[in-house]
Amino acid sequence: MTNAVAELKAKGKAAKEASRKLAYLSTAVKNEALQNIAADLRAKTKEILVANKLDLKQAAANGVNKTMQDRLLLNKARLEGMAKDVLNVAALPDPVGEVFDMRTMPNGLLIGRKRVPLGVIGAMYESRPNVTVDIAVLCLKSGNAVILRGGKEAINSNLALAKLVQQAAVRAGVPEGAIQFVENTDRSLVDEMLKLNEYIDLMIPRGGETFVKFVVQNAAMPVIAGGIGVCHTYVDLMADIDKAVAIVYNAKVQKPSVCNALDTILVHKGIAKRFLPAVAKELAKAGVELHCDARSLSILKLKRGLKLKPATKEDWGKEFLALIAAVKMVDSLDEALEHITRYGSGHSEAIVTEDHTSGMRFLNEVDAACVYVNASTRFTDGAQFGLGAEVGISTQKMHARGPLGLKELTTYKWLILGNGQVRP
Amino acid sequence: MTNAVAELKAKGKAAKEASRKLAYLSTAVKNEALQNIAADLRAKTKEILVANKLDLKQAAANGVNKTMQDRLLLNKARLEGMAKDVLNVAALPDPVGEVFDMRTMPNGLLIGRKRVPLGVIGAMYESRPNVTVDIAVLCLKSGNAVILRGGKEAINSNLALAKLVQQAAVRAGVPEGAIQFVENTDRSLVDEMLKLNEYIDLMIPRGGETFVKFVVQNAAMPVIAGGIGVCHTYVDLMADIDKAVAIVYNAKVQKPSVCNALDTILVHKGIAKRFLPAVAKELAKAGVELHCDARSLSILKLKRGLKLKPATKEDWGKEFLALIAAVKMVDSLDEALEHITRYGSGHSEAIVTEDHTSGMRFLNEVDAACVYVNASTRFTDGAQFGLGAEVGISTQKMHARGPLGLKELTTYKWLILGNGQVRP
Repeated sequence: MTNAVAELKAKGKAAKEASRKLAYLSTAVKNEALQNIAADLRAKTKEILVANKLDLKQAAANGVNKTMQDRLLLNKARLEGMAKDVLNVAALPDPVGEVFDMRTMPNGLLIGRKRVPLGVIGAMYESRPNVTVDIAVLCLKSGNAVILRGGKEAINSNLALAKLVQQAAVRAGVPEGAIQFVENTDRSLVDEMLKLNEYIDLMIPRGGETFVKFVVQNAAMPVIAGGIGVCHTYVDLMADIDKAVAIVYNAKVQKPSVCNALDTILVHKGIAKRFLPAVAKELAKAGVELHCDARSLSILKLKRGLKLKPATKEDWGKEFLALIAAVKMVDSLDEALEHITRYGSGHSEAIVTEDHTSGMRFLNEVDAACVYVNASTRFTDGAQFGLGAEVGISTQKMHARGPLGLKELTTYKWLILGNGQVRP
Repeated sequence: MTNAVAELKAKGKAAKEASRKLAYLSTAVKNEALQNIAADLRAKTKEILVANKLDLKQAAANGVNKTMQDRLLLNKARLEGMAKDVLNVAALPDPVGEVFDMRTMPNGLLIGRKRVPLGVIGAMYESRPNVTVDIAVLCLKSGNAVILRGGKEAINSNLALAKLVQQAAVRAGVPEGAIQFVENTDRSLVDEMLKLNEYIDLMIPRGGETFVKFVVQNAAMPVIAGGIGVCHTYVDLMADIDKAVAIVYNAKVQKPSVCNALDTILVHKGIAKRFLPAVAKELAKAGVELHCDARSLSILKLKRGLKLKPATKEDWGKEFLALIAAVKMVDSLDEALEHITRYGSGHSEAIVTEDHTSGMRFLNEVDAACVYVNASTRFTDGAQFGLGAEVGISTQKMHARGPLGLKELTTYKWLILGNGQVRP
């Protein structure tokens, strides 16, 4: 066993031990820890920015592109934003300790479920250093220990932030070991970390599709995978055209690089001639390129100023993460539902319609984490859904679906309170 | 691809297709299907018993032991019991369709979660043919399609029962394909079934420890593993001796072959001299063998009529599934908690005490699916917990913990109802 692996296991063991105490740590201590973290983010700006400079310098030297450099960048404003986010989490209700479904059975046993933390959460993520603070804070508030492993581009920033978070937490009375940071950024450590099911109860991978799939296939512990969204918006025969244009525009343009952005527009044949030119004109203003099936192309091709391409079969079920949308005309709601069943990724799907029955059918029949009537899929987000914050968005069905807030980082145990009862 | 594999995939595809309709099938149709199943179990007794005779004959010819033969056996009384169990499930509330956490956000969006089925559940199990009906019925009521694969010893009984269930369900309007039975009992089909994550949303393995572990390690889909319980009962310094004796006796003796039966007795040193002789005397009447640590052995060795052995280190953390218990004296509640943390399997753990604070500490600090104060661990069971029925007992933390009832076979999706909202 190499030193790095031994060190990783030691971190796992320490996190597991801390998690036993964290499980019943008082809300007051947890909140004080979060307040300390926010205060330190404001007080220790200088040393964090010094560390961040090292990463930025390295990135520039390695010829990393500007977008990536911007993701790495910390400054006073961003640190202040992080501090505010931490205080927002402090203000959220503590999910731990709630007792529910409790009832007295005929034999007098009191039986119910108590919400408890999962234990130790592993998180692997890429370049943005604020993720170190985000995830540590959400795990802390939900009573979980955490083992963080960030990307190597941000290693100096992450180290500084992890140290800040650890010290601030311990100062409030959080057990030592509750927040672990893996300093070694060797790729081989990923494989080792995925084997640590003895210590890690849940792994959360954040990153590109290839990385997330690798983690799902290779982790010995449960994984919550997400972050991949092939999102459709279906414009029904009975859609209000103005709403449909606004919703599609927002879902595609407001932030095209994220998983809840629109990928494919489905439009009913009976409204396509009115809807498509209207939406295409708006989308063109934002520079959106449309990959159209034959029927939608025949409507749009005579319009001027549009970026059009014939759709290929690769366009269906593709997550563009860019100012591109696929467009398909369908004969019916049924055809739209079939298309979504076949090509959707179970993330976010929307219908635009004024018809009650079509809306209800869409809600019933689409099998996805988030199903919308007359709203933009861009709302799929923990804060927008009222969860306060999120560690990610799950597209799987077990445990939690959609935005993962504090409650989704917990489980329950059954409590059984008796007075000498035995089973007959 | 062999024919058997092609057939298995076809069953997976058919189940997935059926699951889309099952997801919003009315409670009335599902309950009618269950009533049909119960009626047919009563009406078709003869043909089921003919099929069962074939299995029994084969078992006898193969020299299968009597216990195993008894597990295979069906008769009129057992079929009537199965019919009643089905009607009990019909009488349970439908978990599907409940909408919860729904609220109006400041922007006017109505956002909430709706309980929906998981989709397709795979079940692999061993010899008892009633499991075919049990699992099919729980999946049907919870709106899930199911792919059943029973042991080869019960193949004729299982085939007859699966056919009965399928026909009774379709007669009520359940979509064809909702209940699939894998007729091929080749071991290689297990491996193939574990690869079908395209069609199967959750795999439930039932069987011995080796089999369950194999499924956990090799399944491409999520698995709910359970059925293994190393259960401790800690008799605290402040225990009521009569209650402690009754609880330990019940937990060990009432049904020693099951996962919620007691394995290890932990006893505080301050009460051991009074408690151990009292409990040992009772346990001896049932023929229980005690594997004692040095200190408990020194108390018990002078008593007559006891089956005693010195404990070895293999006794700690062992699931006996027999009339054997390990016994250990501890210096404190802390030592008991440490022992349980180290050797428990996260199933069911109990403390016997009249001291409020000790009870509260035990409830807080033991990390297990079910934590008891002053009651027998034998209560860990879906029916005993008021869930009506169970498909198994989960010892994992994700998704569901402890007895898995109808609700635990569901997930949720987010519903977002708007009026044209877009994200600012």
